[in-house]
Amino acid sequence: MLIVMTAQATPADIERVCKKIESLGFRPHPIPGAQKTAIGITGNPGPIDPAEFEDFPGVAEAIRVSKPYKLVSREVKSEDSIVYVKGVPIGGPGLVFCGGPCSVESREQILTSARAVKAAGAQLLRGGAYKPRTSPYAFQGLGEEGLKLLAEARAETGLGIVTEAIDVETFDLVENYADCVQIGARNMQNYSLLRRAGRSRLPILLKRGMSATLEEYLMAAEYILSEGNYNVILCERGVRTFNDHSRNTLDLSVVPAVRKLSHLPIVVDPSHGTGKRDRVHPMGLAAIACGAAGLLVEVHPTPDHALSDGQQSLYPEQFAHLVEECRAIYEVLARRRAPEHALA
Amino acid sequence: MLIVMTAQATPADIERVCKKIESLGFRPHPIPGAQKTAIGITGNPGPIDPAEFEDFPGVAEAIRVSKPYKLVSREVKSEDSIVYVKGVPIGGPGLVFCGGPCSVESREQILTSARAVKAAGAQLLRGGAYKPRTSPYAFQGLGEEGLKLLAEARAETGLGIVTEAIDVETFDLVENYADCVQIGARNMQNYSLLRRAGRSRLPILLKRGMSATLEEYLMAAEYILSEGNYNVILCERGVRTFNDHSRNTLDLSVVPAVRKLSHLPIVVDPSHGTGKRDRVHPMGLAAIACGAAGLLVEVHPTPDHALSDGQQSLYPEQFAHLVEECRAIYEVLARRRAPEHALA
Amino acid sequence: MLIVMTAQATPADIERVCKKIESLGFRPHPIPGAQKTAIGITGNPGPIDPAEFEDFPGVAEAIRVSKPYKLVSREVKSEDSIVYVKGVPIGGPGLVFCGGPCSVESREQILTSARAVKAAGAQLLRGGAYKPRTSPYAFQGLGEEGLKLLAEARAETGLGIVTEAIDVETFDLVENYADCVQIGARNMQNYSLLRRAGRSRLPILLKRGMSATLEEYLMAAEYILSEGNYNVILCERGVRTFNDHSRNTLDLSVVPAVRKLSHLPIVVDPSHGTGKRDRVHPMGLAAIACGAAGLLVEVHPTPDHALSDGQQSLYPEQFAHLVEECRAIYEVLARRRAPEHALA
Amino acid sequence: MLIVMTAQATPADIERVCKKIESLGFRPHPIPGAQKTAIGITGNPGPIDPAEFEDFPGVAEAIRVSKPYKLVSREVKSEDSIVYVKGVPIGGPGLVFCGGPCSVESREQILTSARAVKAAGAQLLRGGAYKPRTSPYAFQGLGEEGLKLLAEARAETGLGIVTEAIDVETFDLVENYADCVQIGARNMQNYSLLRRAGRSRLPILLKRGMSATLEEYLMAAEYILSEGNYNVILCERGVRTFNDHSRNTLDLSVVPAVRKLSHLPIVVDPSHGTGKRDRVHPMGLAAIACGAAGLLVEVHPTPDHALSDGQQSLYPEQFAHLVEECRAIYEVLARRRAPEHALA
Repeated sequence: MLIVMTAQATPADIERVCKKIESLGFRPHPIPGAQKTAIGITGNPGPIDPAEFEDFPGVAEAIRVSKPYKLVSREVKSEDSIVYVKGVPIGGPGLVFCGGPCSVESREQILTSARAVKAAGAQLLRGGAYKPRTSPYAFQGLGEEGLKLLAEARAETGLGIVTEAIDVETFDLVENYADCVQIGARNMQNYSLLRRAGRSRLPILLKRGMSATLEEYLMAAEYILSEGNYNVILCERGVRTFNDHSRNTLDLSVVPAVRKLSHLPIVVDPSHGTGKRDRVHPMGLAAIACGAAGLLVEVHPTPDHALSDGQQSLYPEQFAHLVEECRAIYEVLARRRAPEHALA
Repeated sequence: MLIVMTAQATPADIERVCKKIESLGFRPHPIPGAQKTAIGITGNPGPIDPAEFEDFPGVAEAIRVSKPYKLVSREVKSEDSIVYVKGVPIGGPGLVFCGGPCSVESREQILTSARAVKAAGAQLLRGGAYKPRTSPYAFQGLGEEGLKLLAEARAETGLGIVTEAIDVETFDLVENYADCVQIGARNMQNYSLLRRAGRSRLPILLKRGMSATLEEYLMAAEYILSEGNYNVILCERGVRTFNDHSRNTLDLSVVPAVRKLSHLPIVVDPSHGTGKRDRVHPMGLAAIACGAAGLLVEVHPTPDHALSDGQQSLYPEQFAHLVEECRAIYEVLARRRAPEHALA
Repeated sequence: MLIVMTAQATPADIERVCKKIESLGFRPHPIPGAQKTAIGITGNPGPIDPAEFEDFPGVAEAIRVSKPYKLVSREVKSEDSIVYVKGVPIGGPGLVFCGGPCSVESREQILTSARAVKAAGAQLLRGGAYKPRTSPYAFQGLGEEGLKLLAEARAETGLGIVTEAIDVETFDLVENYADCVQIGARNMQNYSLLRRAGRSRLPILLKRGMSATLEEYLMAAEYILSEGNYNVILCERGVRTFNDHSRNTLDLSVVPAVRKLSHLPIVVDPSHGTGKRDRVHPMGLAAIACGAAGLLVEVHPTPDHALSDGQQSLYPEQFAHLVEECRAIYEVLARRRAPEHALA
Repeated sequence: MLIVMTAQATPADIERVCKKIESLGFRPHPIPGAQKTAIGITGNPGPIDPAEFEDFPGVAEAIRVSKPYKLVSREVKSEDSIVYVKGVPIGGPGLVFCGGPCSVESREQILTSARAVKAAGAQLLRGGAYKPRTSPYAFQGLGEEGLKLLAEARAETGLGIVTEAIDVETFDLVENYADCVQIGARNMQNYSLLRRAGRSRLPILLKRGMSATLEEYLMAAEYILSEGNYNVILCERGVRTFNDHSRNTLDLSVVPAVRKLSHLPIVVDPSHGTGKRDRVHPMGLAAIACGAAGLLVEVHPTPDHALSDGQQSLYPEQFAHLVEECRAIYEVLARRRAPEHALA
């Protein structure tokens, strides 16, 4: 159920509707739009009669939402959401580039990487301090030490930090240092972690699970929104199929599919999506061409010495070239389209 | 690396080798076998020279292990492991049947189910108190109340309890009530949860992830063993493919594949594996025929009124029929084979 | 549309209805059942009004068929079809075993194989004279020479011959020598070949395509039946998924799914379905346990010297053991079930 | 094995090497390059000693080819192949657009479509006269009547005709009317049809099979080249995965993968690749961005009245918009790159 307020509705009108929703045992989610506010209703004590709200001042209409996901749906919010990470808008006009190594390995490595990706045009720095690894005997990240190094890189370069939280236990720590918390593919249906992310004050980058359907993916995002955190960025990173010519199969057609069903921004990770350095550039361009809001790219100053994922990491100059060509594509498409899509 | 002790090695010999391993910065895992003990070595400070151990008393040989998984491997332990859940052996001669509803819904429902599955020949009762659900708005289980009802069912019927822990936060609680803790498919690569399970005093039933390769699956089990808990039962429950004639594609050929590579027992869940009631019986029989140690089956006194997964739950009499035919197949195969496989 | 005749309908009644169907521009398919005959209607000039047939003598009812496949459907024929290959019934009580090498390589090889599979209890001999190979440079089979050797093996052993036709061009030739013509997985949607098979006087063994849904598979069989050949045996041989622990993923749950939707018999090929010798035995047993009518197994007198698929071929004594255990499972299940399933 | 001739080698030198290859029981494939000719060797009587050729005049070197495919490999021919369809180059600088309806339905429909796609900037017209259909009861195409209508559309518009041959029987007929013969996804491993295509005088558009690996796909093309027809265009059209948000999963990363391994041009069919009209535009742009040589697009004057695939067909004005934006992307990328990629 969704209550759409009139353009003239006052904060008091909205407040009154929210109270009514709570009194029925549900949870209200006011979602301000450009013209008017909608109020999503979640929780499951039972069906609600739309008539309950029709006579409230400021209510335009009460409508049933047909999808299993509600708050992430375009039915509930028709305009694109813009999520800000350290002031950088994601999902509006323009593109966002987030680059950096798979994991933080040392002070020199992360500072060199940060300077390089900044020089290449990135606005955000990625790098894992906690790494979910298939083997219990593999390098699991530097932990808090890694977070501190990321903060140092931010202090020097001004780049916003995107880094992964792998469990509820270390979420607080990650939250203290990061500008955006990443939830990885393996944790896409770790519902306790999603709920914790939903109570965070930071934006969340939610990667798609390796065999998640689009509906499951949107439902995972719904978990975060349902706890009150509406700042979610989706990220396609390849799915698992019979294909053996690349590490995963990058499912770019999920980009227009997400954009049709949801107001949340979606970016693409062509590094994990292909697993091969020479595919990152063409697939990064393709992602932008089909409507992604930006890219998440593994960049390493010396890929051949990386502790993890070196074979899919770009050299800094390759990343610069990718950023440049993505912007050229974006610009040529934006120039041909409606003025509200003009470059920032 | 694996240190194989001689059949004459004393506890003191074993202790001495373990201390040496620790002094090198690694972790020793003594694994007692029928004839002799092997000591697995995990941890990653660097390579070890086998010569370091050759002169120790009681050491037969030091061998390199070729697989990425070590402790779960047949290379390390050649005999089948038998895991006991409330005294019921799993993985040895004989079959184990664990039946019950998808989730604990009420006192009457779980008690009726427990009596029914016991009467049908099951040794273990399953039922979820914490349910990982795709939607944040769906029924998430009764929580501790559900655990108490399971304990009550155990008290009345004597059945061992298998129930799921969905996060580290509630693991302690589940551990207080259960006889075996289930880790679900969505959490197969939730490494924090796996490590917690590795520190549990209870056996763990680890379900295969929806798109996990066999190696990833064994590595997930390795996480649990690497923390010191060697009582792990594997469970095939269907993987995700293009098939649309069943909810998942039950990959039974993983059963002989696991049995070749690992000493851990594997059971099959034909309920989630097919998602359709009329497939559970034939696929349950097939699972036993290809070597599964038992079945995990959804049984509900009134499937059409189940709060979840009703369409794949058996009626109690169907479950009794399944148990009976599985035992007939097991017996006819066991009778034809070597004496050590004779029925318990 | 399906016209069901009364139990008392005469051949003349049936003839009259068929003529009427033809006069409307459609094609009649009389399908005799145990009690009464049904007449399927195919062709697509447009919808038919059931009332057209209601007053004809001998007509019990005219019903619409809800599935896209008609002639293969249980809606049209509720009893199991039994297909005879050189007098051997497939799909009735009892099991059928068809063994032999991947391809006919020499006189000695095929005769040795034939004797061995016969001694092991097989009723049918398989072996390819025309091989569809991924590489144009690989061994493509002995052609007609291979067919002659198969005929010689039949003359000596009395085994029925199952061999593949890979195109319309060579179908006539295969038909001259074989007792059952196999259509391979790669040709499952080669509609010209299916139509040719539909005009054959021989039974057809139709293998499931590597990524065919159940509906596509049944539609492929429908092509054959729609041309008038109702003697079709289905065969599951593994589908393509992300799994890398076996060559294909044997989808045994398609066996009960086919048996629910169609009256056609289904057998299983655990050799291609797994691609590994040590999986063939357990998966063969599983296939019988879940209801397959028999097995198609690669057997080679000296697998290590086979020109193709040696690593998945059984030694003759392994095949004998498999046949024996399959029969034991079948017998123990048949003994417990209704009398009409008693052993032949 | 591959014999690379010197830049100074004469036709007589080449002839002499070919004769020698034939005398050894193999088949020579001279492949002229920009600077020098290479001679591929196929056929399988056994290994060849490179020394056999070293002393021949004009021979630069004899090298072993490491891939199972030879003639399609970049190892054998390092420059991009350009395939001409009615004078239109595919695989060189510039883009090719082939548009038209799924099937030829009527004179008016195909003429209207041809005029519309030409006006939109297409150089080629597609449309099926023979349709491989899942159901034997579905519309199978107009046959030769459809071919004649395509020829009429060519006569009026000058567009080259791309149309499918579904079997060897009708190949001659298709060859008489078409400018390029399409082999569909279901026939990608119909080796008899591939061999027939290899003996055609026309270029072949070979679509990727629904679950073909990249190697299988290149091997299918190798069948055509091995018969002497080197004019093959590859076409990605979506593969089958667990995804349900689109009809198939468009695997765009195969585009750079093909371009790395093979000299053959590759185009993309975003219509079948997505199955939804609103995805065709973004995925078409993405295909060009990642390096496809052009697009194959379903366009219908009145998609809602199409006899097949209407839901994935573009309206003519949508197609015009797509062509325009693809060219803008191509141009902006070409302008930034080396001069040899400049627009034609």
